[in-house]
Amino acid sequence: MSDQILDIQQEHQQYIEPLGNWVRTHSCCELNANNIGAEVCLMGWVQFRRDHGGLIFIDLRDRAGLTQVVFSPDFNADAHKTAHILRTEYVLAIKGVVRHRPDGMTNATMVTGEVEVYVSEWKLLNTAKTTPFQIEDRVDASENLRLEYRYLDLRRPKLARNFILRNRAAQSVRRYLDELNFLEVETPCLTKSTPEGARDFLVPSRVNQGMFYALPQSPQIFKQLLMVSGMDRYYQIVRCFRDEDLRADRQPEFTQIDIEMSFVDELQVQTMAEGLVSRVFKDCLDVELTAPFVRMTYDQAMADYGVDKPDTRFDLKLKEVTSIFRESEFKVFAKAEMVKAMRVPAGGELSRKEIDVFTEFVKIYGAQGLAWIKIKADEWQSPFAKFLSDAEKQNLTETLGLEVGDIIFFQAGAPDMCNSALGNLRLEVAKRFNLIPENTFNFLWVTDFPLFEYDADEKRYVACHHPFTAVQVGQEALMKEDPAKVKARAYDLVLNGSEIGGGSIRIHNRAQQEYMFDALGFTKEEADKQFGFLMEAFEYGAPPHGGIAFGMDRLVMLLTGSPSIRDVIAFPKTQKATCLLTDAPSEVSARQLRDLSLRLREVKQD
Amino acid sequence: MSDQILDIQQEHQQYIEPLGNWVRTHSCCELNANNIGAEVCLMGWVQFRRDHGGLIFIDLRDRAGLTQVVFSPDFNADAHKTAHILRTEYVLAIKGVVRHRPDGMTNATMVTGEVEVYVSEWKLLNTAKTTPFQIEDRVDASENLRLEYRYLDLRRPKLARNFILRNRAAQSVRRYLDELNFLEVETPCLTKSTPEGARDFLVPSRVNQGMFYALPQSPQIFKQLLMVSGMDRYYQIVRCFRDEDLRADRQPEFTQIDIEMSFVDELQVQTMAEGLVSRVFKDCLDVELTAPFVRMTYDQAMADYGVDKPDTRFDLKLKEVTSIFRESEFKVFAKAEMVKAMRVPAGGELSRKEIDVFTEFVKIYGAQGLAWIKIKADEWQSPFAKFLSDAEKQNLTETLGLEVGDIIFFQAGAPDMCNSALGNLRLEVAKRFNLIPENTFNFLWVTDFPLFEYDADEKRYVACHHPFTAVQVGQEALMKEDPAKVKARAYDLVLNGSEIGGGSIRIHNRAQQEYMFDALGFTKEEADKQFGFLMEAFEYGAPPHGGIAFGMDRLVMLLTGSPSIRDVIAFPKTQKATCLLTDAPSEVSARQLRDLSLRLREVKQD
Repeated sequence: MSDQILDIQQEHQQYIEPLGNWVRTHSCCELNANNIGAEVCLMGWVQFRRDHGGLIFIDLRDRAGLTQVVFSPDFNADAHKTAHILRTEYVLAIKGVVRHRPDGMTNATMVTGEVEVYVSEWKLLNTAKTTPFQIEDRVDASENLRLEYRYLDLRRPKLARNFILRNRAAQSVRRYLDELNFLEVETPCLTKSTPEGARDFLVPSRVNQGMFYALPQSPQIFKQLLMVSGMDRYYQIVRCFRDEDLRADRQPEFTQIDIEMSFVDELQVQTMAEGLVSRVFKDCLDVELTAPFVRMTYDQAMADYGVDKPDTRFDLKLKEVTSIFRESEFKVFAKAEMVKAMRVPAGGELSRKEIDVFTEFVKIYGAQGLAWIKIKADEWQSPFAKFLSDAEKQNLTETLGLEVGDIIFFQAGAPDMCNSALGNLRLEVAKRFNLIPENTFNFLWVTDFPLFEYDADEKRYVACHHPFTAVQVGQEALMKEDPAKVKARAYDLVLNGSEIGGGSIRIHNRAQQEYMFDALGFTKEEADKQFGFLMEAFEYGAPPHGGIAFGMDRLVMLLTGSPSIRDVIAFPKTQKATCLLTDAPSEVSARQLRDLSLRLREVKQD
Repeated sequence: MSDQILDIQQEHQQYIEPLGNWVRTHSCCELNANNIGAEVCLMGWVQFRRDHGGLIFIDLRDRAGLTQVVFSPDFNADAHKTAHILRTEYVLAIKGVVRHRPDGMTNATMVTGEVEVYVSEWKLLNTAKTTPFQIEDRVDASENLRLEYRYLDLRRPKLARNFILRNRAAQSVRRYLDELNFLEVETPCLTKSTPEGARDFLVPSRVNQGMFYALPQSPQIFKQLLMVSGMDRYYQIVRCFRDEDLRADRQPEFTQIDIEMSFVDELQVQTMAEGLVSRVFKDCLDVELTAPFVRMTYDQAMADYGVDKPDTRFDLKLKEVTSIFRESEFKVFAKAEMVKAMRVPAGGELSRKEIDVFTEFVKIYGAQGLAWIKIKADEWQSPFAKFLSDAEKQNLTETLGLEVGDIIFFQAGAPDMCNSALGNLRLEVAKRFNLIPENTFNFLWVTDFPLFEYDADEKRYVACHHPFTAVQVGQEALMKEDPAKVKARAYDLVLNGSEIGGGSIRIHNRAQQEYMFDALGFTKEEADKQFGFLMEAFEYGAPPHGGIAFGMDRLVMLLTGSPSIRDVIAFPKTQKATCLLTDAPSEVSARQLRDLSLRLREVKQD
């Protein structure tokens, strides 16, 4: 900002007046031809100023929208006299009369485009320095600058709309659950640290020195205790915390729609959830969803899509073709634990360069490379086509339904890698070929998740969902005999390839919970020390119960079509978990640390 | 619990069955004569079992209420056969037929008292050990035992009802604010520590070693930034945190209804708040409040009631009588900075012993003792009546409107002490004489609070409300000339002598905010370091704004008539800030501390 502009803004401060007892009569998105002649009072920000024919025109902006206000020397000379000071983002209150805009000057794209307000009296409520970026939907400022001036970024209509819609979604959720007799019950933020799951944020206790609270990763245990208490149907839109290394779409604190019900099975939880999502989409987007949503088992999802949250807006399925190549001369396939293929119809147009990009992409998922075959009219074009027998080609053609012009991508190796590499490549290919329809909401229940997954770091089985998830009926013995095969009473709700919710039927019996901890490798003492109170609660008449939790931030991202989770959180943290606006976290005083009996270790510099 | 009972409960576990696909048709507070003949499915807990005439009667309880179910060998022999195992708090699901109770057996005090359900089929869903205390409204167990088994305590109908009403209050607040176009916007929990105000809870950062987040004492700064961002009308029902030594009615985490509005003055905030409280009382208690509420200045409240949150359900005012005693022979009064009196009509019946109890009581507030005079028909009875001249007596009689049978209590000394001692004694006296009407809700706005109060510990003026509160128009100069005299644009909402809400019009201008920090003794550097981002925000077109915050816990306490704040919080902490149920806070692992670069100092043992 030049010194000259700064001086002007400071000089204009002398014109600032207190609001006094002025009261707004309308928002800036309300007036139309029905209000012609009315005396109104509007307040807001100068979006734009235009001087024309001795008049000063201002687009006045508030959260709701824009209204054109006119300072005219003929209409009111006093009001016009000082209006020349007005600059972008100045704050003002105006009183005036609503008039029809002159012929040819109406603006059909604006709600208030038929009218303008002739100003009879006004007050300058505040000045504004030149903003570091323009307050408009298209902004080219860096994200860091926008986060530092978050209060200006939030003035951009696109971002402001996200919070209007987020509010609507939250109220929609509450009304729906209220009608179904759910109680919103608040659970503590200062809770107990448990070693299972992600890393806790800790809060040192001053009153109980040397002790720590943990911020909740979810209210899981409290909501189960509420079921034991007979609260029957609980929900909460609740803040949760995970001290993990942040990925692009993660925040250290996030919001969950947390729901638990007593005396229910999977179907009842899912039906309630379908109603909830349908209500939100109706209220927020006026979109009617069709329930019940499609169900798919985890095993089916992995087989057909390679991932547990398939985007079913487009077809493009994977197919295991291991057996075709068992005797092949192409040894990479013949020896592989699994060979999996994805046929891309009419994908043969891909250039070598594009295939190279895909090859780099799949390496993220542990692939060594990306095998491919283009089906030409006269030949199979591929680095390894020469190793394939006619029988193998014939078999592939039938199995995959090949046609001239297709390309096939392959992965060979460990099943996890094959699925992950091809399942993620599937999305890239779909983008390349514009296979993803817009404005389509494909909901999918993924069911019958494994109870356990093997944690290679910890060299033990850990709970796939969490250790309070019930095993499927009749599979108890299998939990120790063949943990990898056991299925949980767990389900995820997937929307367009994003997991927006997940839940399960819970264990509600001490013996089963003890058995679960045992299967997870806890000693009896460890289990008792960490979760003894929960297991004891199960001995006093715990009802069968289950629930689901939705990621509120993710849901609002999808509702608003936002590219980043930071666009739907008012004051988000960066990927380094800092707030660029307030400068948190920050150093604290020696006295604060002494009060908590803490010392800092010497911090290693990166 | 005897071993025998334990054995029975364990033996009964063999009868437990999975819920399967059974679905409840009704709650336990729903069936009446209209349902006669219907086949229903209920689920709940055994509140009570009675065997009579070969039948087994169970009062089945859920959150909603009770229904009598009957196991009859004539109706269904199979269902009756194993019903003898049922014990208190066992969990069951029953299917059966609704019948009218026999003549003379109906219970008009129960919603379902006309009917009973004859059981055709049932499942034992869980057993229960003998509970450490009875699940009923009257409970004589210690609070610590009840907190340890909170999930059982919450089964007591009285406590469960508190959470049903708390939920209703929260939804009522949201609907009201939603109708007024407020947006619920979530603000961060991981924020920046600031030295002003109460002690922060700190959260060490792992990613930014040596740095700390603070949990918010209120979202004050974020809500002001939302106003700068043009969000216009914000609210949030939000968790706040204060690491203070706990009093009986405080919790380390508490919930606030937090509201902020742009382009408003005090009256508009107060009118909105009156509407909000009226809606909540209507929705929760079906009580119609009369708005606008009475207004009283802070100075008037202190003069008449000695406190800034007077209980106006009863009269009993204080009166300053300093001038009457200026020349008195009673030197304690003559020399005192202030002499204040409270006449208790017909209070002369108080015994010497009762007066002694009051004398001890006022010492809590720094009083040395409690002077009193009983007005008898023939004499003024008092330890110091002999020092009073006839003129002084005459003057007192007229000033206080004395009548035979009254007692007067006096305090002499510093005004703060006089007010505090008599103002609090006033409540004790009111209780003693049953002056407080039941089921009366007296709302009162206390206005024109001082901007500053002197902090004797820190030997400086601190903000009475908080440092973002605007000074009253025209008093800027007085802020430095005579800080004690300056009034703030701050207001509290008082209900029956409890502060349930407080707010103010805020500073929205950099120069004024800087001036405020200067008046509070901040250096420019300190102010910039802590609040520079806020003051910078004020330079980019901050609108005039103000707001209010209600203590949700306190409000629900008053709505439910609960004696303790712990009765309206699902999982409260003790006065030592511990959770007796989950055993938080607790020790954490060396690895967790190492991840955070923290060491514990050696903890001093008490």
